[in-house]
Amino acid sequence: MNPRPIGVFDSGVGGLTVFRELEQALPDEPMIYLGDTARVPYGTRSPSTVQRYSLEAQRFLQRHEIKLLVVACNSASSVALEALEQKSDVPVIGVIEPGAHRAVERTRSGVIGVIGTRATVASGAYVRAIHDRRADARVESHACPLFVPLAEEGWTDNAVARETAEIYLQRLREADVDTLVLGCTHYPLLREVIGATMGDGVELVDSAEAVADEVSHLLKDQAAPPPPAGQSARRELYITDDPAPFLRMAERILGLEATHIEQVSLDEH
Amino acid sequence: MNPRPIGVFDSGVGGLTVFRELEQALPDEPMIYLGDTARVPYGTRSPSTVQRYSLEAQRFLQRHEIKLLVVACNSASSVALEALEQKSDVPVIGVIEPGAHRAVERTRSGVIGVIGTRATVASGAYVRAIHDRRADARVESHACPLFVPLAEEGWTDNAVARETAEIYLQRLREADVDTLVLGCTHYPLLREVIGATMGDGVELVDSAEAVADEVSHLLKDQAAPPPPAGQSARRELYITDDPAPFLRMAERILGLEATHIEQVSLDEH
Repeated sequence: MNPRPIGVFDSGVGGLTVFRELEQALPDEPMIYLGDTARVPYGTRSPSTVQRYSLEAQRFLQRHEIKLLVVACNSASSVALEALEQKSDVPVIGVIEPGAHRAVERTRSGVIGVIGTRATVASGAYVRAIHDRRADARVESHACPLFVPLAEEGWTDNAVARETAEIYLQRLREADVDTLVLGCTHYPLLREVIGATMGDGVELVDSAEAVADEVSHLLKDQAAPPPPAGQSARRELYITDDPAPFLRMAERILGLEATHIEQVSLDEH
Repeated sequence: MNPRPIGVFDSGVGGLTVFRELEQALPDEPMIYLGDTARVPYGTRSPSTVQRYSLEAQRFLQRHEIKLLVVACNSASSVALEALEQKSDVPVIGVIEPGAHRAVERTRSGVIGVIGTRATVASGAYVRAIHDRRADARVESHACPLFVPLAEEGWTDNAVARETAEIYLQRLREADVDTLVLGCTHYPLLREVIGATMGDGVELVDSAEAVADEVSHLLKDQAAPPPPAGQSARRELYITDDPAPFLRMAERILGLEATHIEQVSLDEH
């Protein structure tokens, strides 16, 4: 038994899709979420900038004595995971490896699509992680920068979302992928339009679900004791900018209510 | 005569539309541009965060001994101009006042539309600046968060851009505005689709042009001496993240070539 919390970190609000899956898989676990909303998005920034921001977020969560760090951000998982592992004395789980693992499990044809931010796609992290598990897989990657602002605008099922998906996903359809990794934590919010555009034969892999599986497995011997009867497990959200827009999105993603939320600074002057 | 440079500051690449207008109006003036690309966009951040970032940018440009500071960012102009003026010993020009001035000059009906980021619209800065000049003006404002990522994706004349403009601009058409302020430095890149959606009867006000007029006026007695024959005036670009994506956009906006460009840090540790 280990009563310390799980720390979940994302550049903004998208990682809440991972937080939600973790909550459903592990309802008794105390969890702390940090969204670096003052510096979102990471997906358009350079690797060295993403590494610096990620290490600052890690130090913040370490001060809360976490027992496990979940990097619920594809951009940070792509370029900063090694740096984070070097500075951590607890396990660090990114979203890339679990997503790649599940994609390889699910594909039948071995032709796998990956969509994500420019940073995630440019890093090649999914391609490498998939090839580590299945050397003969063919991977088609495509950056879809407008999907994040569309999800944040709540335009998940209108003509703009459908037309955008048509343009971005055309090449993946032509490549006949049978499995598509949603390589950005915002993309599950567009799951329906992405699924409809790709067609019934294509399985969508949501990294958030895959991460929750992996964390459940890792914590087998380190689960937290259940909270006292009538109470629920500790849930704390920290963000680095104004809570109002975050809460609007959080409600949409998590159906979140009445959780401790606080604005903090990561600047280390 | 004053040989010191004009300093132009924006959260990212959008302010280059202002830089371009200044260059055309004042080809002999030395100019320094700072794009805070590591922390773009400002338009979704809280006022206190935007103020802090803006003051850091100002200190950077002050170290280059500028004779005038142009805040080529609507979000920063909306919420940080006063703070910047307090810390400046040279004139500070934002984009709001010149844009509002021109809109009031141009409107016939007195019904003026303003589009911008959420931060700019929520600040009410354009509405106040317009009412200061014409108390009976009716101002309709609307936030268009997807226009910036559309412009950065280069989707300025496809079906997605047209459908997005239809949705965002519907209320302004219904309000019968005869003048529309493009209250975000990216929006001139979408000028054609915005113009086509609004229709021929609506005049678009580009703040960048208005700022260039105002700066020309202010510098009447402080113009720089012309550069030696065969040389062109000093142009320096500084950004806070990877130059590659900035240069791609810069080429699209400025037709920019062979300019001094350098990555810098604004963190003041």
